[in-house]
Amino acid sequence: MIKHYKPSGRYSVATIHNGVAYLCGHYASDLSKDIKGQTEEALDSIDKSLLEIGTDKSKMLSVMIHLKTMDDYAEMNSVYDNWVAKLPPARTCVVGEMFSNDCLIEVTVTAVV
Amino acid sequence: MIKHYKPSGRYSVATIHNGVAYLCGHYASDLSKDIKGQTEEALDSIDKSLLEIGTDKSKMLSVMIHLKTMDDYAEMNSVYDNWVAKLPPARTCVVGEMFSNDCLIEVTVTAVV
Amino acid sequence: MIKHYKPSGRYSVATIHNGVAYLCGHYASDLSKDIKGQTEEALDSIDKSLLEIGTDKSKMLSVMIHLKTMDDYAEMNSVYDNWVAKLPPARTCVVGEMFSNDCLIEVTVTAVV
Repeated sequence: MIKHYKPSGRYSVATIHNGVAYLCGHYASDLSKDIKGQTEEALDSIDKSLLEIGTDKSKMLSVMIHLKTMDDYAEMNSVYDNWVAKLPPARTCVVGEMFSNDCLIEVTVTAVV
Repeated sequence: MIKHYKPSGRYSVATIHNGVAYLCGHYASDLSKDIKGQTEEALDSIDKSLLEIGTDKSKMLSVMIHLKTMDDYAEMNSVYDNWVAKLPPARTCVVGEMFSNDCLIEVTVTAVV
Repeated sequence: MIKHYKPSGRYSVATIHNGVAYLCGHYASDLSKDIKGQTEEALDSIDKSLLEIGTDKSKMLSVMIHLKTMDDYAEMNSVYDNWVAKLPPARTCVVGEMFSNDCLIEVTVTAVV
């Protein structure tokens, strides 16, 4: 009924139910990078997760972006706008600190599978 | 499979899939207004989006409210409580700064269509 | 079409549509407790809500955790990791102040019913 993709003791990277995938918050693997680099890595990580569960970014329904600071808003968007599909998901972007003080962006999406 | 309502290069105002609509974060058009004015405008904007996709506030499933500061909580609620349907959606309200320093409230909803 | 669980004038504790439940943000009833105590109470409250709508934590799809401060991250996780099911939901955890300055954690979940 519910498929769990890459479950760990704390969270699954994605859960899938009734044709909708709920992804965990994705962030960069290299947190020493600047906002552009972290945005690229976070979005690349989402691409990989979506691919592995049989879908892609053109089928996203919603995106929630958390930034460490709104000072990074324009640079994040410069990467995001080039990445997102021509028919994009609904989006919300707000400030919210994350697990690491070095983490500048975390992206949580839902998508059709 | 997915309907996109008012897609721009960055986001759709809403996506619709399998009878559920996912709206982008809605905020006031006049960010010089106070919290009551911005809340009215944000909720009015949601009403308009819901109407245009063929539903209304009585069919909302979830609401996520981001405020710039919890100092505005009581005044936001005074507007929200008068607006929301008698059988209201599930709600979460937290602080999170938004794209503009003048933006006091952003509201993200899902609804049945 | 939409079932409302415990609707008040402001929000429903949960809405249910098409086999998916959307819960409101759950927090501790005793906000004088420390992060471990508040996490226990918030998760216990989720257990009760899920039970009353006919499901349980093993069927959660997504979890959004808001903390007052990331200083509480490790202690929150020590409680959360013991609570969450072996096949856990997708998760996002960010900082976001809540309605009360004493509220240290709020948890918002979706689950299959």
